[in-house]
Amino acid sequence: MSDLLCGGTLAERTAAHGATSPEEMRRIIRTGAWTEPTAGLCRGHVQANMAILPADWAFEFLLFCQRNPKPCPVLDVTEPGSPEPRLVAPGADLRTDLPRYRVYRDGVLTEEPTDIRHLWRDDLVAFLLGCSFSFEGALLEAGVPVRHIEEGTNVPMYITNRPCVPAGRFAGPTVVSMRPVPNPLVPKAVLCTGRFPSVHGAPIHIGDPEALGIADVNRPDFGDPVPIRPGETPVFWACGVTPQAVVMASKPPFVITHSPGHMFLCNPRDADYAVF
Amino acid sequence: MSDLLCGGTLAERTAAHGATSPEEMRRIIRTGAWTEPTAGLCRGHVQANMAILPADWAFEFLLFCQRNPKPCPVLDVTEPGSPEPRLVAPGADLRTDLPRYRVYRDGVLTEEPTDIRHLWRDDLVAFLLGCSFSFEGALLEAGVPVRHIEEGTNVPMYITNRPCVPAGRFAGPTVVSMRPVPNPLVPKAVLCTGRFPSVHGAPIHIGDPEALGIADVNRPDFGDPVPIRPGETPVFWACGVTPQAVVMASKPPFVITHSPGHMFLCNPRDADYAVF
Repeated sequence: MSDLLCGGTLAERTAAHGATSPEEMRRIIRTGAWTEPTAGLCRGHVQANMAILPADWAFEFLLFCQRNPKPCPVLDVTEPGSPEPRLVAPGADLRTDLPRYRVYRDGVLTEEPTDIRHLWRDDLVAFLLGCSFSFEGALLEAGVPVRHIEEGTNVPMYITNRPCVPAGRFAGPTVVSMRPVPNPLVPKAVLCTGRFPSVHGAPIHIGDPEALGIADVNRPDFGDPVPIRPGETPVFWACGVTPQAVVMASKPPFVITHSPGHMFLCNPRDADYAVF
Repeated sequence: MSDLLCGGTLAERTAAHGATSPEEMRRIIRTGAWTEPTAGLCRGHVQANMAILPADWAFEFLLFCQRNPKPCPVLDVTEPGSPEPRLVAPGADLRTDLPRYRVYRDGVLTEEPTDIRHLWRDDLVAFLLGCSFSFEGALLEAGVPVRHIEEGTNVPMYITNRPCVPAGRFAGPTVVSMRPVPNPLVPKAVLCTGRFPSVHGAPIHIGDPEALGIADVNRPDFGDPVPIRPGETPVFWACGVTPQAVVMASKPPFVITHSPGHMFLCNPRDADYAVF
C-alpha cells in the first residue's frame, strides 16, 4: 500500500485509499505517511470531529452536547487521561491517529502538529462528534446530488440566529451547513438524513435563509459559496462547526482539535448509526 | 380540581387527572396533595425517571448514559446546585415536584420522603431519564396490546447477560422489560417504539429469553410476571431500571431518586420525542 502514498495528486492518492480499512488507514496516519484531509478515505466508515478538553471542562461540554444533539452528536468520549476511543476504535490512539491537529491556548491557535504525544496530560478528555460526511453518503446513495462535492469545494456554513441551549460556560449560536436540493428531492433528503440522528440527522430548516438570520446565502461565514439553481431549495443542516465555535468562544485554557478536514477515522460504518 | 383528590380509589383519582396539564399537576404535587404513583396522569406527556448525584460523580454518570442510550435515555440534566429542569419543565422544582423520593447513603436506602428541600446541596446534579410510559402510549395507539396494563400489574423486568458499556465507576448489566406481543403485530411494535429513541426506542431482543440469560421468563427480577399466550412472542426493551441498578451498585455516598412509579411529569408530549 505504501507506494500508493508517494505519488500522484491528493485526489488520486485519496482514491487509492477509498477501500482501505479504518484500522489500516489509522496505522498509516500514525507513521506520519498521511498528513492530508480525510474526505473520501475508507468510504462507508464514519469520520469524526474531535475536541480535547481538560477534565474540569468535560462535564459542561458533555452536557452542552447532550442539550444540543443535532449540532453536537456525541460518538465517543474517552476516560480522563486515556487517548483510546474504546467505543468507535478500540486500540486506536487519538494522540497519533489523526493526520493533523490544532492546539489552542487561552483561545489562541498556537500550533498545528501532526502528533500530540508531547502535549498529552492525565487530565485530558477527548470527544469525538459526528460529521456530515456520513449523511452526505446517504444523500448520494439516495440519488440526491451534493453540490459542493460536485464543485470540489468546501460546504458553505453559516452562523444562525438560533442560540444553542447553553450549559455551564458553553454558549453560542447554531452553525448550519447548506446544500441546494432540487425541489422534488427535498422530501427524500429529509428522510434519508433523518435516519442518522448521530450524524446531525434531518435538516433544521428548509428554504428562506433569512428566517435563520442569514443575510446573504452567497456569502457563507465558513467554507465556499455554491450556486443555487432554479428549481432548487436551500436545505440547512446543523453543523459540527457549532461545538468548535462554542468551545473557542468560551476560551478554555487548553484545547486540542482536529485540523479542519483532517478527521478521525472510526471503525463503525455509516449504516451502523441508522435508526431505521 | 382539588375536590377530585379527596375521595375514590387511586384509579378513579388518576382518571380525574388524565387530562390535567403537567404544570398544574406538578403544582398539586408540590402542595403535598398527591403522593401516589403517576401512571395515567397528564396523558400524552412524557414522564421521567430521576437520579440526583453529587457533582463529582456527574460526568461519569452522564458518560455512562451517553454510552448506553437505550437503557439510559437522557431527557434533561440540571446545572450543579440548580433544582430546575430547564429543558423539560422551566420553573419546576425537582425538590418538591415529585410525589415521593428515595434517599440512599452509601448505597443504603435511608428515607422515602415526599419533599427533599431539607436534603438539597449546592453540589447536586439531577438527571431526568426517559421512561417506558411514553412508548407504551405509542404501542396502544398503534393497536398493540400491553399485557401488564390489561392485567393491572407492574411490567416484568429482568437482569440480562448483556453488560452495559462501563464509564468510570459505573458498570453493570442491562435490565430489560418484557411485553408479550401477538406475532402478527411484532413488526408494528418494533416500528412504533423505534420512533422514540429518547424513551428506550426499538426492542433490543425478540423471542428466546434464554439468549438474554433469562432462566425463567415467569420469574422476573423486578415487577410482576405476565402470561405469554399461544401465538405471542416475548419482546424485550431496554429498561430505565438499568441506570438505577448501576448507580446503586457503584454506591456513591449520596443519591436521591424518584420512588418507583412516582415519576416526574415533563411538559413535552410523547410526540415531541418522535424522530419520524
